[in-house]
Amino acid sequence: MSTDATDIHAAIRAAYDVFESTFARGDAAGMAALYTSNGMLLPTGTGMISGSQAIQDFWQGAMDMGVATAKIDIAEVSGHADVVVDVGHYTLGAANGDVMDNGKYIVIWRNENGRWKLHRDIWNSNTADAG
Amino acid sequence: MSTDATDIHAAIRAAYDVFESTFARGDAAGMAALYTSNGMLLPTGTGMISGSQAIQDFWQGAMDMGVATAKIDIAEVSGHADVVVDVGHYTLGAANGDVMDNGKYIVIWRNENGRWKLHRDIWNSNTADAG
Repeated sequence: MSTDATDIHAAIRAAYDVFESTFARGDAAGMAALYTSNGMLLPTGTGMISGSQAIQDFWQGAMDMGVATAKIDIAEVSGHADVVVDVGHYTLGAANGDVMDNGKYIVIWRNENGRWKLHRDIWNSNTADAG
Repeated sequence: MSTDATDIHAAIRAAYDVFESTFARGDAAGMAALYTSNGMLLPTGTGMISGSQAIQDFWQGAMDMGVATAKIDIAEVSGHADVVVDVGHYTLGAANGDVMDNGKYIVIWRNENGRWKLHRDIWNSNTADAG
């Protein structure tokens, strides 16, 4: 596998494209499959969330709350073939296009069976009162 | 520099020991000096905070709000000599020992002039109503 920085950035962007399209079709199980088998979410308001079923349940909960889209803007990507981390901004939208929340995140990626997957995913809102 | 995983874990733990002691003596300028020259904080309730003066002001604000201690428990460290990232839990305490907040974090580290410094620092609370 190439460790060229441009290639890694493109690979992570491609993974987020799938993330965004999976979210937009309301596929919570598909979201969970984008994480490593021992992946973890670190959301505000709860402890660490581990494992595919819990990750699926979390994203299903967000969809049930009316979050229809999750857009990711990468600010920077760093790392090597086996440990990649990126920093960026997210925007959560309702079905009518209203912005429900925006904030920033750091994701640690692992390559699992030749596919880049989210391994650790932490984010927080830019506004104090949003989830 | 050794890239042995045990050495890196020990180096990051040592950096957090300084982080904790610097915080405990209320030295906000010293806190800022633990970050890279282009370091960034990603706290809940605001956008990304860049640069030494802004980082100093942020930590001074936390101290002024009564946060007297910041304890760090590393859960895992990964990476190489030039890109290291760790995941863990934090606990913020008042001067009387009361826990003010706890949560989780991811920090991206850079080695700057032979010293490990926090480069990107994001965290959020385990409780929805804490800062």
